[in-house]
Amino acid sequence: MSESFAAVEIIAAKRDKHELTDAQIDWVIRAYTDGAVADEQMSALLMAILLNGMNSREISRWTNAMIKSGERMSWSALDRPTVDKHSTGGVGDKITLPLAACGAAVPQLSGRGLGHTGGTLDKLESIPGWRASLSNDEMLKVLQDCGAVICAAGAGLAPADKKLYALRDVTATVEAIPLIASSIMSKKIAEGTSALVLDVKTGAGAFMSDPLKARELAQTMVGLGKDAGVKTLALVTAMDIPLGLTAGNALEVRESLEVLSGGGPADVVELTLIFAQEMLEIVGIKGKDPAKALKDGSAMDVWRKMISAQGGNPDAPLPVARENITISAESSGTILSMDAMAVGVAAWRLGAGRSRQGESVQSGAGIEIHKKPGEKIVAGQPLYTLHTDTPERFARAQEVLQGSVQIGDAEVKRLPLIVERIS
Amino acid sequence: MSESFAAVEIIAAKRDKHELTDAQIDWVIRAYTDGAVADEQMSALLMAILLNGMNSREISRWTNAMIKSGERMSWSALDRPTVDKHSTGGVGDKITLPLAACGAAVPQLSGRGLGHTGGTLDKLESIPGWRASLSNDEMLKVLQDCGAVICAAGAGLAPADKKLYALRDVTATVEAIPLIASSIMSKKIAEGTSALVLDVKTGAGAFMSDPLKARELAQTMVGLGKDAGVKTLALVTAMDIPLGLTAGNALEVRESLEVLSGGGPADVVELTLIFAQEMLEIVGIKGKDPAKALKDGSAMDVWRKMISAQGGNPDAPLPVARENITISAESSGTILSMDAMAVGVAAWRLGAGRSRQGESVQSGAGIEIHKKPGEKIVAGQPLYTLHTDTPERFARAQEVLQGSVQIGDAEVKRLPLIVERIS
Repeated sequence: MSESFAAVEIIAAKRDKHELTDAQIDWVIRAYTDGAVADEQMSALLMAILLNGMNSREISRWTNAMIKSGERMSWSALDRPTVDKHSTGGVGDKITLPLAACGAAVPQLSGRGLGHTGGTLDKLESIPGWRASLSNDEMLKVLQDCGAVICAAGAGLAPADKKLYALRDVTATVEAIPLIASSIMSKKIAEGTSALVLDVKTGAGAFMSDPLKARELAQTMVGLGKDAGVKTLALVTAMDIPLGLTAGNALEVRESLEVLSGGGPADVVELTLIFAQEMLEIVGIKGKDPAKALKDGSAMDVWRKMISAQGGNPDAPLPVARENITISAESSGTILSMDAMAVGVAAWRLGAGRSRQGESVQSGAGIEIHKKPGEKIVAGQPLYTLHTDTPERFARAQEVLQGSVQIGDAEVKRLPLIVERIS
Repeated sequence: MSESFAAVEIIAAKRDKHELTDAQIDWVIRAYTDGAVADEQMSALLMAILLNGMNSREISRWTNAMIKSGERMSWSALDRPTVDKHSTGGVGDKITLPLAACGAAVPQLSGRGLGHTGGTLDKLESIPGWRASLSNDEMLKVLQDCGAVICAAGAGLAPADKKLYALRDVTATVEAIPLIASSIMSKKIAEGTSALVLDVKTGAGAFMSDPLKARELAQTMVGLGKDAGVKTLALVTAMDIPLGLTAGNALEVRESLEVLSGGGPADVVELTLIFAQEMLEIVGIKGKDPAKALKDGSAMDVWRKMISAQGGNPDAPLPVARENITISAESSGTILSMDAMAVGVAAWRLGAGRSRQGESVQSGAGIEIHKKPGEKIVAGQPLYTLHTDTPERFARAQEVLQGSVQIGDAEVKRLPLIVERIS
């Protein structure tokens, strides 16, 4: 059978709502990684999967085939259990950074951000000197010495996913639960962590704005983790309003440093501690109090050590954007809602995110939020400060922020911070 | 807006079951033809169209955009009305050749066959010396002098369709009525014919085996023809058993010559005359009897003139395959059914068709059928003769013919030759 013919048969099977066999899934992922299946064939298959779905057996096999397309890391040389977290994005996600200091070994091998959701690597690269790319030996050394490493996933890790991720982005096939779940989990499983806590964002600022879809994604990922022998837990968390008071790379690092110094916004601290406790519990580490680690400076010590080990200078001033403007409230009252998606897109338009893979981002660009829902504001008081190196970007950021807050007298309705826990 | 972003928006709209706007359709066809929209983006859009459909406005606009991607021929210099036919394939289609002699001007600009359905050009290329590629001036001259021209559609005719056709073939997006209808009709409308009679095959040997789907395709194409000002009529015709007694290039030309000489299989003659009468009627030519043209040799005269005008020698012997084997009946009785798809695939496997665009085909390869459904056969009597230049192909052809006939005592059930007429 010619390879092209085999690919057409597999696309046709999914197009006609049939289940793909294990052999078909293994073959198509391997052949796509090797270049024998063309991009235009895979994109047709991805659209058929998006529209016709995959069952749990198919998703599990698909994920496994992506893991097997590359190397699988092992941290068995470590003296501590490994645990990682993954957030499905959302806006203002800055939990990742303080979590690196929670006591177990956290091997966080990350990708770049795309669109309005910032990437962890982009945030840390705002620290002068910090390097995202490490060899496998360097990763192990930083992890052993510091208890955490946050770095770029090497090219050998789930290469099938790297190709698929780029393809999905340009073919409108991102928004499929089987493809999202397998993409995230293949990378996390290949990364070699023994336990994983997932943060699945829901609400207006999240990729999965519908809580039922967020639950389905969380359940799918937890199932995939268990299939692969990784202890996995998911929390569906609220992203109906922005988390914390900043969106942008250096701005979010600064806020994370406030949390590591025992301060910072209450919602960020609360979510950080919930995740840290879940992560400690899932690997069976007892008698450690992450709240204490934030207060007594020990979390900050781990952070400084990790940043230094990757070439960063934790004492260097963080970059600040060249220009800023402040947007003020147009009326007085209680802030009833704040559109997290609008805040994320505005930060992206200011230069904090990229539109295409490979584009550079501005370290200093982004948004500061001065008042959040539930707080009172008076007309003329500052609501947002916008930062960018390229002031021609202000207009399009302001445009998306038009109407992003409601001010009035009614009761503030919010999702609970933790919407659901799926284990 | 970047072009990539625009393409993603259009794919996402169809993915989410929205109607595409006229501007979106015009843009995506033009940008794909120019190379600004990538194959992997178009294939995702095609799969979304296949699964979510297009309404009649969208199909009409899509067809128009494909026509506008290239030149539109004009035959206004002719002294006769133009009329063409198109068959959606099926097995043993040999109506096309005798029809070229029916009196009006037939500008038949054709493509190559793919898969188990043979192409008109492949059939005629079995005639020594005959050239498929003509300049526009040559086409007009042959059409004026002979009343018919059968030749390759030039590269300037609906170039968007040429790219889409090749893409659909490798991405399992062939089987979508909007895409089939727009592909056929964009070429036929660009070809410049003023009237068109469509032969939409249905039954087990046809691409549209379901008569309801065949009707939908026929109705869609008739609507597109009328939208473009081309008088259009469709007949849904039976392809539950093979038409005539041959499948293959030179074998089918030989059978066509028998029909042009006043003989040939009764079913081929009947369908030929039905189409010839419909074609004469649709352009208002009265007082001509195509049956008489077959009997008195005038149809054969037109044929010889047309073949000669394109470099062919109508007196040269047709190629014969180097090897043949005969398959005999395994039991005695009446032939109850014959699987036209199996016969077509066997001819393809013997070398009469191609698996990939650009492959060459064998002129002599194919199948002769000795007995058809309704006829009696005795165990051991010849049923099929298989022809090929490459005898290693016999085994796979025989394999697909296993069980292709039923022999017994029951009544023979057949579709009527003309299933439905749609005008």
